[in-house]
Order: sequence, then structure tokens, then C-alpha cells
Amino acid sequence: MKAITSRDNPLYKRLKALAGSTHQQRRSAHALLEGFHLASAYLDVAGQPETCVVTEGALRHEEAQAIVSRIDAQRVVTLPDALFGQLSNVVHGVGILLLVEKIEAPLPDKVVETCVVLDGVQDAGNVGSILRSAAAAGVSHVFCAPGTAYAWSSKVLRSGMGAHFLLEIHEDVEAATLIGRLGIPVTITDSHGAVAIYDCDLSGPHAWVFGNEGAGVSQAWRDAVTHRVTIPQPGGMESLNVAAAAAVCLFEQCRQQRGT
Amino acid sequence: MKAITSRDNPLYKRLKALAGSTHQQRRSAHALLEGFHLASAYLDVAGQPETCVVTEGALRHEEAQAIVSRIDAQRVVTLPDALFGQLSNVVHGVGILLLVEKIEAPLPDKVVETCVVLDGVQDAGNVGSILRSAAAAGVSHVFCAPGTAYAWSSKVLRSGMGAHFLLEIHEDVEAATLIGRLGIPVTITDSHGAVAIYDCDLSGPHAWVFGNEGAGVSQAWRDAVTHRVTIPQPGGMESLNVAAAAAVCLFEQCRQQRGT
Repeated sequence: MKAITSRDNPLYKRLKALAGSTHQQRRSAHALLEGFHLASAYLDVAGQPETCVVTEGALRHEEAQAIVSRIDAQRVVTLPDALFGQLSNVVHGVGILLLVEKIEAPLPDKVVETCVVLDGVQDAGNVGSILRSAAAAGVSHVFCAPGTAYAWSSKVLRSGMGAHFLLEIHEDVEAATLIGRLGIPVTITDSHGAVAIYDCDLSGPHAWVFGNEGAGVSQAWRDAVTHRVTIPQPGGMESLNVAAAAAVCLFEQCRQQRGT
Repeated sequence: MKAITSRDNPLYKRLKALAGSTHQQRRSAHALLEGFHLASAYLDVAGQPETCVVTEGALRHEEAQAIVSRIDAQRVVTLPDALFGQLSNVVHGVGILLLVEKIEAPLPDKVVETCVVLDGVQDAGNVGSILRSAAAAGVSHVFCAPGTAYAWSSKVLRSGMGAHFLLEIHEDVEAATLIGRLGIPVTITDSHGAVAIYDCDLSGPHAWVFGNEGAGVSQAWRDAVTHRVTIPQPGGMESLNVAAAAAVCLFEQCRQQRGT
């Protein structure tokens, strides 16, 4: 275990640059996993992190000790609270984070099970909420088109609550590439002229495409659509938040598949 | 129409203090409605704002002129872009906002229609998303318990997308006060030992109580529960984001009521 005490330490400078910039996180394909829950979920699934950063104070707590004991000692560094505070994105953090490469799986040759496509969903909270709903609904693969928020950013990780480790998340997937590998219908929500979602047969697998908060689903995906469904809305609003709509769709499919 | 050019102007200083602090907005029971959509929705429902603030640049655009033409000239002030920028919470804003008192309706004596209770929901994005889902589902009343995010904060307004003007939102409503006025069952989601939501009769009105992101529903509301329902989750996650769960509940109720 190594102690860093200076803000001029090169590893600390690198951590600080990553913590302050989602762009840097994306460019380097790295993530910072803060807190016990994300750290232990990562260790369960992926093995050793690049580095584990922990405060001297946190090391006195059992939960932090349990995590640190699973990591090779030469990968662990300690920081004073003041330096750690500048890396943290959590208000009352517990003083532990892992620096890891994001988990990348190869794109499947053929997609035959229900999956989710995020087609330019911009808000990190929405991306995290949809990942969480997808994992809860039993979806295995999420494909993110260019323009979608970086799925391994600190904010998406926080709102995903561990969903990242139950899913295979594929980023920067172009529509044309994925469409060629889909062996299942492409389904989008649309407020006008579509079939009510309850009247659409969702007993089989679907590729659910959820679009940008403002612009909706892109033309490339619109051209590939099999089913356009609508969520009937008796009130006066025209549309739902994209993460709310995704939850309604994925769980209506779960409801229809319940008997089978 | 009056032009403000100095950052020492008392109205400008007040606007800046409000824009920078949700706490100030809540304490003064005021809101800043930024953009064409929120401004025109307010004018449709509530009449004159306290003040309309607009940049000189925005006044050249038809949509801004249309809004300004609906407001008494002595309530309109113009600002240079640089001063307006410090009031704005939107990245590419259109240069118009209304300062208004939040809309408050008296607490109904008796609640007999489906309503939503936000019991300490903390995240502004979640509150906005639930307001939007409630308005889309045809709910009329939303009751916010103490500890819930301020419903008229800039961030909740932005994610609510106009839902505020289709709902009656009651804030700081204590559980005991509301429970005494409810003539309908109280329903919460619970991951353990509850009835699957699809097997619960939702054809009548329900008071849906959605709790804090971490702690869930408070004891006062737990003690008043009629139905505990669960959203069956075939995947490995234990729970959904609260706004996603709210959407699933409200639209499952809409589905069940479709035929009636």
C-alpha cells in the first residue's frame, strides 16, 4: 500500500483530471467507481481494478477493509481526506473509489434476445435510470449510439446503482452496424398514429430504441422500425420523460411475458 | 418597458439571488420560469407574472414578442445578454424568463380521486419526471411531504416540461393532515412480500405514495397503507429508480382503467 500526500503526485493529477471531466473519462475509456456498492460489484464481476484509492479514515471501517482486502496491495493508494475530497462526486462519500478501465464486450454477431438501444439519450440521469430498468427487466445487452451520454461516467454509474455489472453495455454503436445483426423486430414509442402498447404483441423479443430527449429517434433507426407503439396518456401532457417511457415499455413486456 | 443595465440594480440583485439558490426560491415561494414553453404555459393558466425579464436580442424574435405582448408593459424589464446569462440555468437559453409567485391551491377537504404523494423524493429530476408522468396519466393532485425537493425550483420546472400547469401541487403536506382527508386506498410499492401490481385491482382511485430514493416511504405513511404492490423484476436488480417505478404504477393503472 502506498501513501500519496502531495497534490503534485502524477497519479493524483491523473485522477483529478478524470474526476473533473466526463470527456477525459470517455476519451481514456476509464471510470471512477465510488463507494462500497459499485466497488464490490466491480470486484465480483471484473477482478482487479487498475488502482484502489482510499482515505486513511475509511480504512478504519470494516466495509472498506473488506474491499481493500480483495485487492493486490500494490494497487492500493491512500490519500488524506482533503485530497480525496477533490476526487469525490458524492456529498457524504465513504472515502473509497476504484480507477478501472470500462468493461467492454465484443459486439455480438447476432442479436436474438430483447435488447435496448439508446439513440442519443443525453442526460446522464436518464441513461442511468434506463440501464437500471433494463437490468431489472432481465435485458442483457444495451447498445449506445454515438451522441449518447458516456455510460461509464460518474453520474451514470451513480444513477445506474450497479446495473452496469449485470448488463453488457456496447458504446458508439452505429445504427447500420447493429441493424445488420438484429434478428428481432425494432420497436419505438411514438405519440402519433401508433398502436397502443397494450395491443402490441410483446411476448417475443424486441429491440427497444429510445431516442434523444429533444429530437427523438434518429432517421436511421426510424427507417428500420418494425413496430411503433404509443403509451396512451389520458392526461393533457404530450409525452413522458424518456426514462419513464422506457420503464413503462420494458415492464409492459415483462407483464405480457409473465404467463409464458 | 424598463431597461436594467447595472448589476447593482435592486431587482437584478434579487433575481440573481433567486437564480442561484433553490433555498431562496423556496423560502420566498417564488419561481423563475425560463423559456417560451414554461412562460406561455404560465400565462395561459395564471395570468400576469410579477416580472418578465427579456434580453434585447430575444425581443427581435417572434416567439418572445408574442409572450411579451401578453404582459403589462410596466412588468417587463430588458437586460443585456451578459447580465441575463447570470440568471439563466439553460445552456442555450432563449433569453426570456418570468419571475412568479408559485401557484398554490388550498388543500382539498376530501380526496376521492387518484393522487400522488411524494414522501421525501429528493432528486429534482425525479420529482420533475414524476410530475410529468402524473399529468400524462390524468392525475390532478400531487402532495409533497416535507423533505421533498422544492417543486417550483428551476430544475424541477425544467424536467416537469409544463406538468406544473396541469396539476395542483401542494407542498409541505404532513402525512397526518392528508391521511385524514383521504377517501381512497393508500398504495405503495414494496419489493418484498407484496402482491404483483398486475394482480392488484387498480380500477378505482388510489393514493400512490412514492418515497425517498434511499430510505423509501416514511413510517407515518407505512402505517396508513392499504395495498403494498411489487413490480415483478425478472432481472437481477433489486429495485427501480423511483420515477421509473412511479411511471410503471401510474400507467399500469391507466391500462387497467382503459376498458372502463
